[in-house]
Amino acid sequence: MTDTTRRRGRRPAGEDARAEIVAAARAEFAARGFDGATLRGIARAAGVDPRLVHHYFENGKEDLFIAAFQFPARPADVIPVVFGPGIDGVGERLVRFFFGVWDTPPGREMMLGLVRSAATSEQAAAMIRQFVTRTILARAADVLPGGDAELRVELAVAQMVGVAFLRYVIRVEPLASADLEDLVPLLAPTVQRYLAGE
Amino acid sequence: MTDTTRRRGRRPAGEDARAEIVAAARAEFAARGFDGATLRGIARAAGVDPRLVHHYFENGKEDLFIAAFQFPARPADVIPVVFGPGIDGVGERLVRFFFGVWDTPPGREMMLGLVRSAATSEQAAAMIRQFVTRTILARAADVLPGGDAELRVELAVAQMVGVAFLRYVIRVEPLASADLEDLVPLLAPTVQRYLAGE
Repeated sequence: MTDTTRRRGRRPAGEDARAEIVAAARAEFAARGFDGATLRGIARAAGVDPRLVHHYFENGKEDLFIAAFQFPARPADVIPVVFGPGIDGVGERLVRFFFGVWDTPPGREMMLGLVRSAATSEQAAAMIRQFVTRTILARAADVLPGGDAELRVELAVAQMVGVAFLRYVIRVEPLASADLEDLVPLLAPTVQRYLAGE
Repeated sequence: MTDTTRRRGRRPAGEDARAEIVAAARAEFAARGFDGATLRGIARAAGVDPRLVHHYFENGKEDLFIAAFQFPARPADVIPVVFGPGIDGVGERLVRFFFGVWDTPPGREMMLGLVRSAATSEQAAAMIRQFVTRTILARAADVLPGGDAELRVELAVAQMVGVAFLRYVIRVEPLASADLEDLVPLLAPTVQRYLAGE
């Protein structure tokens, strides 16, 4: 069982401890970055035993970061779904996943928060950079062909981040009102080319 | 003569008036957006005759906006250089121009300021949206083939904006340290495909 949220609602005392761990994690990540924060330090700040942190967050720091910043999905779950079926169609699967997050209100709120934080705080940018590097780029480079896989993943992500910036932040037309189904055939081939190294 | 800055240093009194006009323009654009601000309103706020505004800024609101926010280049000058030689090579010319702006300290400062403002202020986002729509998209759609030229220009710009966001704001590696000469062959074909409608 990897979805620790299933334990919710059954142990109110535990739920309080979990909330304190998440609050401590948020503060520790903000102060020390993703690389600098430790499970031990987060446990200490929350006033709990490190084993309790492991109990709630089996995947350690990565799951804590996701809970602290309310990510709607875990890279550990998403990457097998997007990359698992092979290189065929990976562009379309990634575009649909990325904009699927933006198209839910909590997902969009979270993503806009990340963009705002990164744009205005070097500390937040460093935290996001470290998280993306350790969890997304490292995994994607493992499953993609070619030696410059990390750079190509970044260019693919850049295409989607740029579209999100113009569509949801600047809100320039016609992109802001375009139907996602009209964007997928335009964006998926670009993302596919980068990921396949074409 | 379109470069009004050449008049600098010859008429100190005029230079003061020009600076007051620019300051008034900055405030008017921030308060009313690009579409809502008027030359007459800017002249009134600066306490000068509207003809003096025309004297310094022949291209009207567009030149005032560029001066107010210290753009390193005018779309009216850049678009003929990038698009004028025809569709062949337009992707590479646009990529080189865009990252050429980011690679000068004042250009980068200005672009980072735009990203920060857009990300944190709906008013700033609206101002940038209106400026981009009136000056860049309208011109680019005039010179490009196909009916969805505006959308394709936006996807091309999104690719470059996204790369700038990951490279200069998040600063994720290897993109942050990549040589521009290594990025051009990866980015130019993407931008070219969008602009040529391929």
